[in-house]
Amino acid sequence: MATKARERLLQTAEELFYAEGIRACGVERILEVSGVGRASFYRHFQSKDELVLEVLRGRDVRWRAWLEEAVAARGLPATERPAAVFDALAERFGWQDFRGCAFINTMVEAADPQSAAFQAAADHKRRVVAYLDRLLDEAGYAGHKALARQFMLLVDGAIVAALRDRTTESAGSAKAVAVALLAAQRAP
Amino acid sequence: MATKARERLLQTAEELFYAEGIRACGVERILEVSGVGRASFYRHFQSKDELVLEVLRGRDVRWRAWLEEAVAARGLPATERPAAVFDALAERFGWQDFRGCAFINTMVEAADPQSAAFQAAADHKRRVVAYLDRLLDEAGYAGHKALARQFMLLVDGAIVAALRDRTTESAGSAKAVAVALLAAQRAP
Repeated sequence: MATKARERLLQTAEELFYAEGIRACGVERILEVSGVGRASFYRHFQSKDELVLEVLRGRDVRWRAWLEEAVAARGLPATERPAAVFDALAERFGWQDFRGCAFINTMVEAADPQSAAFQAAADHKRRVVAYLDRLLDEAGYAGHKALARQFMLLVDGAIVAALRDRTTESAGSAKAVAVALLAAQRAP
Repeated sequence: MATKARERLLQTAEELFYAEGIRACGVERILEVSGVGRASFYRHFQSKDELVLEVLRGRDVRWRAWLEEAVAARGLPATERPAAVFDALAERFGWQDFRGCAFINTMVEAADPQSAAFQAAADHKRRVVAYLDRLLDEAGYAGHKALARQFMLLVDGAIVAALRDRTTESAGSAKAVAVALLAAQRAP
């Protein structure tokens, strides 16, 4: 039962933080929506800050697992997997509750780059770069490290455009750039 | 004197919103830092929301004027101007108070895409796309409309990376992608 309350708090907080913002959403609101009592909250989390970090930790793991599975599920040869990242993103941009990247949102809201929440969000992005690097390395690109950083620019740029325009179009636009970039690498 | 108070409120609010976030910074704090009195504030602005919109309006105009001047100041031929956008960004990323894009930050914080602040921020981005489109058109690229959207992905992606890593490196990385993209357009 204690574990269930913890799970409910984490899930409610993750949804509210993403939909409304971390700062906009205080402990009161999380208690109200989750139906968990105050005493129970503080048995599980020392503070809202601790809850925020726990939410980011869970989301990082699930987000990356989602991306890896979405790319793997396409059953493509290694050379075609890097660009498939953008097809996966297009799916996600179409979700009704899409509101950009929870980790970009966290960096924006946390403001202070020394804060634990900002650092956790930045670490997530670095782990995504590491995954892109692995895909590009497995696809045989000698310059995979620089390419992975460039792919990440396209991923983040596409997310910002999707947040702005609420369409999935930017994922296709970013994919076209990625494909051109890879073609330029193959050229002599 | 009245005009001076208005200017001081706008400038203080712009600095605080950018540094700390719009939501984090209430009217109290703006009054405190600007030294303007409450009665004077409400003579100039009906509400914080109106102040936010006025700050965004001013920043949109100044930001685009800055970019256009920074590109023009390089005295490059039309064909080399589009990629120079990233050299201009690199300068900006190096500013000590850099904290990403005020308009991305506003979209993240405003959350509700129907809100006036969100719309003003999205409009700014569309005006930047229009400027990129003009540069690419003048440089002779037939596909300038699609290219402008792709350049915008690179601009926003570079901004997010610069916010995360506090380095100017992402501007160079984005420029390399832009150059490869333009080269692919020139190819037969």
